Amino acid sequence: MEMKTPRFAVVLSGCGVFDGSEIHEAVLTMLAIERSGSEYQCFAPNTWQARTIDHFTGEAVAISGDEDNRNVLAESARICRGNIKDLSEFRAQDFEGIVFPGGFGAALNLSDFALKGSECDINQEVRRAIEESYQQGLVIGAMCIAPVVLSRVLGKEHITITIGNDKDVSSGICKSGARHENKEATEVCVDEEHKIVTTPCYMLAKSMQEVAMGTSNLIDAMLELMDY
Amino acid sequence: MEMKTPRFAVVLSGCGVFDGSEIHEAVLTMLAIERSGSEYQCFAPNTWQARTIDHFTGEAVAISGDEDNRNVLAESARICRGNIKDLSEFRAQDFEGIVFPGGFGAALNLSDFALKGSECDINQEVRRAIEESYQQGLVIGAMCIAPVVLSRVLGKEHITITIGNDKDVSSGICKSGARHENKEATEVCVDEEHKIVTTPCYMLAKSMQEVAMGTSNLIDAMLELMDY
Repeated sequence: MEMKTPRFAVVLSGCGVFDGSEIHEAVLTMLAIERSGSEYQCFAPNTWQARTIDHFTGEAVAISGDEDNRNVLAESARICRGNIKDLSEFRAQDFEGIVFPGGFGAALNLSDFALKGSECDINQEVRRAIEESYQQGLVIGAMCIAPVVLSRVLGKEHITITIGNDKDVSSGICKSGARHENKEATEVCVDEEHKIVTTPCYMLAKSMQEVAMGTSNLIDAMLELMDY
Repeated sequence: MEMKTPRFAVVLSGCGVFDGSEIHEAVLTMLAIERSGSEYQCFAPNTWQARTIDHFTGEAVAISGDEDNRNVLAESARICRGNIKDLSEFRAQDFEGIVFPGGFGAALNLSDFALKGSECDINQEVRRAIEESYQQGLVIGAMCIAPVVLSRVLGKEHITITIGNDKDVSSGICKSGARHENKEATEVCVDEEHKIVTTPCYMLAKSMQEVAMGTSNLIDAMLELMDY
């Protein structure tokens, strides 16, 4: 019997920790997938960023007009050298796993958790991708702050996730019906029943080496939950 | 006798392969430095990007006014979570090595090699950083297309470098007085006399694993050339 190569969808939310995907988490996730012998395809929603932050000064960049002038799909494409698809093209049957790196983009662009907390809205393509993945039995992974998006969509299923040990964020998560487990920087929280794996990365990590270990642990744990 | 921790300056040129630093090369360089037990500080010139490319479509973004609206320092800051300094603050005596990841930013923002080839102009802070580093005996590293910047500044010293095996680029390099050696994706070209190490990375690499190996080989070779 031939082993099928596991395929991961990686969902990005922009390019830069303060308004998009955390770049180290995204890059080291892709590297961990490649090293495991698996394949990946990046996706991002085709929508405007909620805000743009000057990452040198930390200040918001003034935008003329109602919409920010950076597009989440176009910025996310920077992290994967243009090899990315519009999230509306995501089909769960083409993958065994779907993974969400962290960064504020998860709480600004994939959802508006940064503004509304547990009552946040979820980008409709992000919601569809998560619901389809869950219904079709994909393994779902998320790191750093990105598990808040899972809690808003799947909290009613009483999933168990971690964002490290932040009391405010974890209490927001629990309001959705999800359970929260405190974890150390490189540990993974494995919910076998719902096939969900989460890890804190830069919610707690103090170095790139810890992020490399956390993302690698996450991908390994996701592979163990796949039906092979 | 106590061993001093080697200190690397990492010079970025924006955030994204088509108009700035190649993100995988930059991130994996920082990780390789950290794993070696060394320290690093990122720098970038405080100047406007020569152009901005939509990394999803591959098209140039229309800019209103004479100047592009993205700043090289602010965009580079995305790759290192805001922990970056203006290149004008770089002092060679604070470091044992200086390293230039690749990406088109090296040929668009650090220099205008992409437009003028071997007759290119070099950003004045970039030129100063390279000249000061060379005069003070730092080990200089560069990957992918970034060695063209070294050839323009130090070609008169007859340095030996690699950008892989591209005939057009290597012939441009040789016009400066520099010598070019063909190398495979993960190999390093070591110029012991001038303390310069270069490696092709994405000029030839077909995977992130090859880039991880190339950057790691580069940092290892730089450390061997340091006076410890």
